Amino acid sequence: MTGEIKNKLEKISKILSESGIEVYSAKELKSYLYDETPPSLGLKPTENVLITKPRNTNEVSKIMKIASRERIPVFVRGGGTGLSGGAVPTAEGLILSTEKMKKMEIDVENFCAVCGAGITLRELIMNAEASGLSFSPHPGDETATVGGMVSTNAGGVRAMKYGVMRNYVLGLEAVLPNGDIIKLGGKLIKNNAGYNMMHLLIGSEGTLAVVTEVVLRLLPPFRKTATIAVPFKTIEGAIEAVVEILRNGTIPLALEYIEREALEIGEKVSGKRWPPKDEANLMVIIEGRNEDELVEVAEKIEEICIGKGASNAFIALGYKEQRDLLEVRSLIYEGMKEKVIEVLDVSVPPAQIPEYVKRCNSVAEKMGFKVVNYGHAGDGNIHQHPLKTEGWEEKYEELKKTFFRIARELGGSITGEHGVGIVKKKDLKEHLSKAEYELLQKIKRAFDPDGILNPGKVVDL
Amino acid sequence: MTGEIKNKLEKISKILSESGIEVYSAKELKSYLYDETPPSLGLKPTENVLITKPRNTNEVSKIMKIASRERIPVFVRGGGTGLSGGAVPTAEGLILSTEKMKKMEIDVENFCAVCGAGITLRELIMNAEASGLSFSPHPGDETATVGGMVSTNAGGVRAMKYGVMRNYVLGLEAVLPNGDIIKLGGKLIKNNAGYNMMHLLIGSEGTLAVVTEVVLRLLPPFRKTATIAVPFKTIEGAIEAVVEILRNGTIPLALEYIEREALEIGEKVSGKRWPPKDEANLMVIIEGRNEDELVEVAEKIEEICIGKGASNAFIALGYKEQRDLLEVRSLIYEGMKEKVIEVLDVSVPPAQIPEYVKRCNSVAEKMGFKVVNYGHAGDGNIHQHPLKTEGWEEKYEELKKTFFRIARELGGSITGEHGVGIVKKKDLKEHLSKAEYELLQKIKRAFDPDGILNPGKVVDL
Repeated sequence: MTGEIKNKLEKISKILSESGIEVYSAKELKSYLYDETPPSLGLKPTENVLITKPRNTNEVSKIMKIASRERIPVFVRGGGTGLSGGAVPTAEGLILSTEKMKKMEIDVENFCAVCGAGITLRELIMNAEASGLSFSPHPGDETATVGGMVSTNAGGVRAMKYGVMRNYVLGLEAVLPNGDIIKLGGKLIKNNAGYNMMHLLIGSEGTLAVVTEVVLRLLPPFRKTATIAVPFKTIEGAIEAVVEILRNGTIPLALEYIEREALEIGEKVSGKRWPPKDEANLMVIIEGRNEDELVEVAEKIEEICIGKGASNAFIALGYKEQRDLLEVRSLIYEGMKEKVIEVLDVSVPPAQIPEYVKRCNSVAEKMGFKVVNYGHAGDGNIHQHPLKTEGWEEKYEELKKTFFRIARELGGSITGEHGVGIVKKKDLKEHLSKAEYELLQKIKRAFDPDGILNPGKVVDL
Repeated sequence: MTGEIKNKLEKISKILSESGIEVYSAKELKSYLYDETPPSLGLKPTENVLITKPRNTNEVSKIMKIASRERIPVFVRGGGTGLSGGAVPTAEGLILSTEKMKKMEIDVENFCAVCGAGITLRELIMNAEASGLSFSPHPGDETATVGGMVSTNAGGVRAMKYGVMRNYVLGLEAVLPNGDIIKLGGKLIKNNAGYNMMHLLIGSEGTLAVVTEVVLRLLPPFRKTATIAVPFKTIEGAIEAVVEILRNGTIPLALEYIEREALEIGEKVSGKRWPPKDEANLMVIIEGRNEDELVEVAEKIEEICIGKGASNAFIALGYKEQRDLLEVRSLIYEGMKEKVIEVLDVSVPPAQIPEYVKRCNSVAEKMGFKVVNYGHAGDGNIHQHPLKTEGWEEKYEELKKTFFRIARELGGSITGEHGVGIVKKKDLKEHLSKAEYELLQKIKRAFDPDGILNPGKVVDL
């Protein structure tokens, strides 16, 4: 650390402490330097950082004003569940953890929750349900925070029916890099007053402003569900069935594609059994008003799947049966974490999944890689897990580039839900046209002319 | 017209004609100078404009390149159904009409439509239905164009259940003021690759880029509907019932609030009768899998409404009965168009509608104004129609300002769906904080540094 920055950080630490804002050294809170990005990608956080924990928007504003005056980088941290290195500090400066921002108000008359950035998904769900409402999408790990989920526009398995995080944000309060507080939207379902800064901040990964408070739409309580597990011989059969299920008029809560190998890993970790499986499996979760309706829809789905080559279908109606299936699905990543290089999250037009997966697998095989696939078939967002193999370090970059090129050729995006962060920053530049990339840079400069907010992420100044 | 601009326009006209792009004078197409903004607001279009009708994105790019080189303003025009003067030319230059941009592709496998900007809502609905799918929201007049509806983030009566235009845009192609073509999103449900320029362009009212092509999400075909008309004595009773209906777990397709006087106008124009009405009426449209389900839900809604003070409820299940009710509702505006000063579209937290309406009515009464109200109760978007009265010209500005101040105090927005255009440009500046307004200006400059695209709308450079 240069003497100058050291002095600045000491000075900032003193000012913040005197204002009653907690400040820690990175030595005390080592885990704050990392998120859930697979270690294989070898991110090296800068250790010379201070960690600060403001309790509300005004304290965040105070921190940003000082940081801006001193030109000190600030890295915003939510639950640390990201997979793209978005929360990893890349320069000497401050980590701003939102964990103490715990405002939580449920407005039952206006069907919304007003949450501090540090409220976790679990807290949000529990508070909504305790008020007789629900937060319907399930955008990821339940320790993720509202601020993080909004900043990354988190997706998850229910996006098919309930959309992504963006669809639930009605209003937000944020602090600009210069410390100015802005309030966008509100408890409002419709708002067309000027360019939509709110939707621009959603998914900007904390590089334009610090999201401090969010108004989220809540919905009526959840209905009954059924879970249907269907084994197919081929990915084509499975995806054709997906298209047909949707055309038939049912939008399932979740429509997941899972390869045999992934299920076997999930079974091992969970200790639960998956019903008869094959090479390409679908897990369909449907929601209905009552058991009769669920059975009727489930049987129609079974019929469609058998028409597309499935040998049978396992329909789970009971709570425990369904929970067991979900557990197998949820624990797949846990079981292969150590072997995985990266969790890719390419998004393609849904009907193009088979072509995308087949072309990628064929490239991978030629290059000596094994890739395990599962993901959100209904919305075209597939998670590819390339596994470590001998000498992978030398050739992985080429594999990834090829996957992204194939995605582009099929009209896809290099990231459907995990975001750009550090790990896809170079790829983003290649993915976009020059005009598009320059617009991103101009936007970054409009919000953060000195580049102090999350530098090294998404786009360069 | 100055000689310089005259020469420039003549030169541009020649170049475009030689490229096979149609060009007209404003004398030939006088109606192109106006949109549906009430004449009382006295917008004065600039008549010295040329009207050009490109057929595709490349032709739009060609036009913008020339306009940019010559620094000539360009006004983009869709169906001309806007109510805020967004399509009215405010300076000598070009009107770019999208009416010849009629690309139309339905992708049944990926549940989407790829539309040229000039495709009308009616054409979109018909094409989607002919392919066994549906375009579920109904964002306004069926002669509105896709480009216009995206550029204004159109709302409409079904936003409660199906959301606004923004929720259906998966991808778009647009031309920047300098002629560069950008492609954002695609046939993709999830996309987190960089700042979301697509959502920034949605609702930017043609002031940042010219939207030339849009990928819109389609859904499975529509189900059966029932329409329930419920008369209440007071607006409080009606809105309490709205909250209770939603809490009960039903999200209606539409949940409209209509005052007695508005219904009487609609009856007169349509020649159809509304079932027993009272001061404050609800029109609830529900969607269900079959008639049994509809009757069950409708009866539950009736029970809730009676609990909140309604005397009875009229449940229409037949096609004709429902169409008649819709016709009364649809023709209200037609019947008072001549008398209306402006169609306001404030959006407030839904449960605040009664307070908002009562406070506004009380102010209006004191100032000698009569205001007729109806609107989208379920999503907090109320249409207030102040009627012309003696000497209204002198005092209307104050009335509007007061309404907007009340909206702000209740956490509302000055425009829920009609947008800013010309007519709310000054109000927007007052509605936003200095920091927020400056961000809008920076965004405008990032896209359109010379201010040639729709100048005089939304925000000043």
